[in-house]
This record gives sequence, structure tokens and C-alpha cells, in this order.
Amino acid sequence: MRTSYATGLRCIKCGQAYPKKYLLECSVCKGLLELQYDLEGLARIRPCHLEGLNLWRYAPFLPIENSANFVSLGEGMTPLLFCPRLAEVLGLRELYIKFEGTNPTGTLKDRSSATAVSAALEFGYRATAVVSTGNAGSSLAAYSARAGLYSFIFCYEKGAQPKMAHMGACASELVLYKGGYDDLIKIYDRLMEEEPIFECGASRNPYKQEGKKTIAYEIYEQLGERVPDYFISPVAVGETFIATWRGFNEMKAIGWSDKLPTMVAAQARRANPVALALASRGPLVPQRIGYTIAEGVAVGDPGKKGEWVLRILREAKGLAGDASDEEIIEAQGLLAKTEGIWAGPTGCVTVAVLRDLVAKGAIPCEASVVCLVSETGLKGEYPRIEQEAIEPTLETVRRILQKALDLGSDPKAKGP
Amino acid sequence: MRTSYATGLRCIKCGQAYPKKYLLECSVCKGLLELQYDLEGLARIRPCHLEGLNLWRYAPFLPIENSANFVSLGEGMTPLLFCPRLAEVLGLRELYIKFEGTNPTGTLKDRSSATAVSAALEFGYRATAVVSTGNAGSSLAAYSARAGLYSFIFCYEKGAQPKMAHMGACASELVLYKGGYDDLIKIYDRLMEEEPIFECGASRNPYKQEGKKTIAYEIYEQLGERVPDYFISPVAVGETFIATWRGFNEMKAIGWSDKLPTMVAAQARRANPVALALASRGPLVPQRIGYTIAEGVAVGDPGKKGEWVLRILREAKGLAGDASDEEIIEAQGLLAKTEGIWAGPTGCVTVAVLRDLVAKGAIPCEASVVCLVSETGLKGEYPRIEQEAIEPTLETVRRILQKALDLGSDPKAKGP
Repeated sequence: MRTSYATGLRCIKCGQAYPKKYLLECSVCKGLLELQYDLEGLARIRPCHLEGLNLWRYAPFLPIENSANFVSLGEGMTPLLFCPRLAEVLGLRELYIKFEGTNPTGTLKDRSSATAVSAALEFGYRATAVVSTGNAGSSLAAYSARAGLYSFIFCYEKGAQPKMAHMGACASELVLYKGGYDDLIKIYDRLMEEEPIFECGASRNPYKQEGKKTIAYEIYEQLGERVPDYFISPVAVGETFIATWRGFNEMKAIGWSDKLPTMVAAQARRANPVALALASRGPLVPQRIGYTIAEGVAVGDPGKKGEWVLRILREAKGLAGDASDEEIIEAQGLLAKTEGIWAGPTGCVTVAVLRDLVAKGAIPCEASVVCLVSETGLKGEYPRIEQEAIEPTLETVRRILQKALDLGSDPKAKGP
Repeated sequence: MRTSYATGLRCIKCGQAYPKKYLLECSVCKGLLELQYDLEGLARIRPCHLEGLNLWRYAPFLPIENSANFVSLGEGMTPLLFCPRLAEVLGLRELYIKFEGTNPTGTLKDRSSATAVSAALEFGYRATAVVSTGNAGSSLAAYSARAGLYSFIFCYEKGAQPKMAHMGACASELVLYKGGYDDLIKIYDRLMEEEPIFECGASRNPYKQEGKKTIAYEIYEQLGERVPDYFISPVAVGETFIATWRGFNEMKAIGWSDKLPTMVAAQARRANPVALALASRGPLVPQRIGYTIAEGVAVGDPGKKGEWVLRILREAKGLAGDASDEEIIEAQGLLAKTEGIWAGPTGCVTVAVLRDLVAKGAIPCEASVVCLVSETGLKGEYPRIEQEAIEPTLETVRRILQKALDLGSDPKAKGP
């Protein structure tokens, strides 16, 4: 088994092939690039040959040649949780939550940071950079620190405080800037062409995207070597959706699986260009968006990757849906109360969309469904809990605890 | 291989034996109870026989009989990270951080919540309870929800907002109370004797404590079936310290390991009764403590478990140390900058104490050291980052990014 079976890059638009190198877009047509693999070689690998419990378990399917460049903080192999209580509320029989909140920085970004930073090492770079409102920035800063690389993390000055503290602690250089993303991004992109810095944004870098492919492989292994009928993925720029789809396709191509899941793209209603385009059978229309509580999917113009997602949905007969902020918050509470899973609003968009699609009959109740929950709830800023505090007297506390009497406890073995 | 090899309970003080049942203290002498196992049976198990990747991988070493009662959110199998950059700063050769921040609710409490809630199910209880300022409460609430049990979570009204939001979302009943822990605890303890509720505090429940034992087993497996020379554990009430020591001892008793690590107890200087008692060779003197930034170890009176920890330290020639709030914050930054690990202050107490003990020569530089970092940094509340935001112009951004020129990048493969 070789370390990596990646053979090079290929433009998804014009098909131009390149050797494996650092390149953000096709030199011929400016199309997006995707990694290519020796599928015949990969077909000789069986799941039982894989070793280790972090992302590098799937090294043969990833683009890093030299294992000395593997960077890890223990990302990946996140729990796939069978969720019968939530399934019952939603009206499903077989529902699993793939909970990405147990990654080192609390989100699935750690998978792409791992391959991005490892690729930076492999290609000889000593610096990384990203523009981020929080999750991607703190993840890239952490992985760059782990690798001993210098990180430039750009965050607009209104970023959430806990995320800024995280970025500030891990980044070599946290740069706060005035205005919004649009004020910086053109300048940033231009300078990324000039300086010896490995760019780690979500919109173009094929090495970064590739790390998220491992989600599909893990699901396959965790389900006992099969893929689900439906897979619900959030769509912001589209990186996670595209990467997991690539993973499911590779597993089919190398004979691990004989089918593909139906892909479901989940968006926030306030940033739903892909869902709208699919429903209207029209082109993807970029949106000027305002605030949505699901910050991590607040992308109105997903650019070329959005087009890629739309093409996948159309060709593979996928589904898409969107959820209002109220539905997202409701899904967050439901996930916590029924299964004890504490996820942030961004992570709950998929649950809200799934709920709606099952209610509409678009996803049948007997289907096996894996719903990706992309982040922990621990990164959020929440409104103050408005609840009166009790005086701790025997009477007040007893009144509360006596509710336990009606719950039907049957202590078989209490006391001697 | 049986599901569990636990045979019963035994008082650590008078030796009185009990069958496996729900019991918080010895009926004879009120001493603490510990679980007993069929060590001959366990000695027939080898690491290669273990299955699964959550805490229940170690089910034979845990007290739950019926696997239908295993509750899991994917806790355990947290990364053991080899940390050469941090080791260099500290003056060590072989340093590993056992990072518990990747547990489902971000702390090692998930291990003890898993066994506590599973034991509640096994003994026929439908309700759980705990008094907590945050981490234990949110973890127990999450695991109770996962198991379909009713949870009573008591938190004083001044608890941190993000933790309250978490508890509020997962708990069946979040009870805020006026005053502090001391105002409630006697009433609470008395009512726990009366009501059919499985009590899940850290001070007495032997089933709860047992879950943390798995940390020792994981370290053994992750180090390639050996134990380290030194193991640094935080000590608040003492649950983690005692449980991991039990784990290391069991592995020696069943022949997995031929040695025990030197145990190191780490405390905050503002709550250091165990460290003080060990240094003074005197008894453990309960302290009235004020604020320390390491909230999770802010225990001035660890009670009977504190005595237990002290006895272990004395009998096994362990070490103890304490760290000031300033040293803890410095350790937090060091861990983030050198290795990209983002941990809360409570989690960094061990790193600060380790640093001090190595500097003093109490831990030799050639030793292999595992340092437990108990929580993620994502649960903290941090001061606002005071940093001026730049105007995003080509010149200002270029000036920043040009620092990359001095870093020695050698892009072997940039551009076509």
C-alpha cells in the first residue's frame, strides 16, 4: 500500500491535466481543480487494511506523499450516532447523526485544515493564510501552529469574541480588518499570487477540500461497510458537499460500495442560492444576504463551487432545502433534548432541512439517513437564560425533586 | 469475554464488601466505595481483543453488565498528541498531551457521565441529578438526554452563560439557585437519600468515577502497550486522579504492564490543599478559597477523596505541584502557540505544574511524560481582544503579508 495514490490535478471544466503541485485554478480556463487518483491501485485496498484513528487512516485516498508531512491534532473518526429518539420525532426509522463537534477545534474544518497544512509542508511553504469569521480561521491557525508554520488569519473586526480569543491564541498573526469580506477579498487574492504563502480559503484550494472527503469513508466504515440511502450535507461555499460526494463516488469506483447515497444540500433560508436554483430549474443567482443565525453557511454567492454543487444535484437527482432561523433554533433544541447532542446553529441547518423534507414526503420514512452536524454548540454566543433562581431550602428543593416520583423508577438494587 | 468483570463494591476504609448495587458510601463506616473486579478473568484479555472506539471498548473493565444499558455520545479515544515543540520549551524529550477536549461536551466529564448514566439505567432509575457550575452539569444533562432519563441539574445563578445555555438545552430541569454550593449541598444530599434519583456528583458515586479509568487504558494502548514514566493529572475533588491510578494498577495486576507511572497531582495555587499537605508532610487542611481562573479545580475541601489522593501520593511516592493563575494563562498560550492545542485554563493547570516541576529538576528531562489536558478552550469566556483593525488597502495588507518573505519558504512546485 503506497502512502498516497493521488496522481495529479484536473480541471473540472476543460479537463486539462496537471501534475501534483500547488495550483488554485486551471491555467487554461480558470476552472476549479480536483485531485485525480490511481483508482486501480486504490481498488486493491480493503477497509481492513487501513490503520490509525485520525484522518490519516485514509492517507491512500489523500494527496500527501510523504508521511513526515502528515499534520494531526486527532481530527476525524467522529461519532456516527444512531438516533432513535430524534428519528421518531422526525418520522424516520433509521437515522444517524455524524457529529463533527468532537474534532479538535469543534468543527469539520479540522479535516480540511489537516490536508491544507500538510500540503503546505509538502510543497515547501512556511506560511499559510485565510480570511475567516471564525471557524476556519481558528482551525487553520491551530493546525499551522501544530506544524510550526506561520499563519496569517484575517478576521473582520466584528467577529465573535470566543472565536477571536481562539484565533488570537493559535495564530502567528491575527489581522483584524475594518469593513466586511468584500472589502478585503480582492486585495487578498491578488497578494496571494505574489507572496510565498499557501492560501487556505474554501473556494479554490483542492488540497484543502480533499480532507473533508474522509467523512464519506468514515460513514461507510461506521455503517458496517455500506453507504446510507440519503446523506444530508450543509452547503455554504459547497466544499463539504463536493468533497463527500467525491468520497462516495470513489468508493463506488473502487468497488467498496455498489451504490451512491442521494445527496441532500441544506441551506439557511437567508442564504439559499443553491436550493432556489434547484427548485426553479434555473441558474444559480448570487444573493446579497443579511444576517442568519447559521453563520457558517451565510454565503450568498458560492461562486464556482456553488455551480459545481448544483451540477451534482442535477446530475445525481439530489435534493435541496432551506430552513428559517426559527426552524434552525428549534432543530438545535430538539437535537439536544432528544439525543443530548449540543450543536451550533450552523450544525443544525441539516437537521431542520431533513425534518422539513421528511414532513413533505420527499425523503421516505423507511430510508436510512445520515445527517451531518458540522459543529459543536460550544462555540456559540447565546442569549442570557432568563429564569428565576430559587432559594435553596429543603421545601423548594424537595418540591422540585419529587417530580422524580412520577417517572417510574424501579431501583432494583438500591440500599442494602 | 464477558461484558463486565466487575464483582462488587468494597469500602476503601474498613474493607466491607458489597454486591454490585447503587450505594454511595459504606453502611458500616461511611467510607468511600470502590469497584472490585475478577482480575483472573481480566488477565485473559489482551488489548487486541478489545472492540469499538468509544468508552465501551473497555467494557470488561467497567461495571455495566447489560450492553443494552451502554450509553454513548462517542466519548473517549481522545488523541494522545506527541508534542516535540512544547517539550523543547519545557526541557523534556518525550512529552504527550492527552487532549480530552475532543469529548462530546468538550471535557473528560463525558467519561464519567457515560458510566454514571449507564449505571442509572442498569439499576432501574429514571432520573439523575448533580450540582455543578457547568462542565459536569452539561455533560450529565447530555448523557441523560441521550439515555431518555430525566435530569435535575442544579447550577448557582452566577454560572457562566455559555455553560448555562448548554445545560438549559440538554437538561430536563435546569434549577438555578441563589447563594453558593455550600448553601445547597446539605439539603441536596439529604433529599438524594429520599427520592428515587441516581446521584451523579463527583464526591462519592463509584460508578461515575469508574468511567475515567479508561483514560489510563487508552494511554497504554496509544503508547504502543506501555505506560509513561510520569502521568500528570489535575486534582479538584480527586476523581480523575484516583480513577486513572486505579486503571494503571489494574493493568499491572493483570500483567499488561510491569510498571506504574509516577503520579503527579496538579492543583491551582488558590486551591491547593493536596499539594500543601504533601509538601508539609502534614494532614490535609480544607481551605476556604476565593476565585481561580481554573474553575474546574476550584475545590478547597476535597473531602474523603482528597485524603485518598494524598494516600496514593504518599504510598506510591508521587509528586504534587500548584500553579498561579498567571502561570496557568501562560501555559494556555504556550500550548496554543507551540502545538495548536486550545484548552481552557482548568485544562492547562497540569501543563503549568509540569513546567515548574521540570524546571525544578523534580521530573528528569529524559523521562516519558503524559500530561492530561482535561477540557477544550471553547467553553471559556475570554476578555475582549484589544487590537486595532486595519483599513484593508493593498499597501497595509501587503506590508503584513510580506513578512512571509523572511520565513524561508521554498515552494518546490508552485505554478506550472
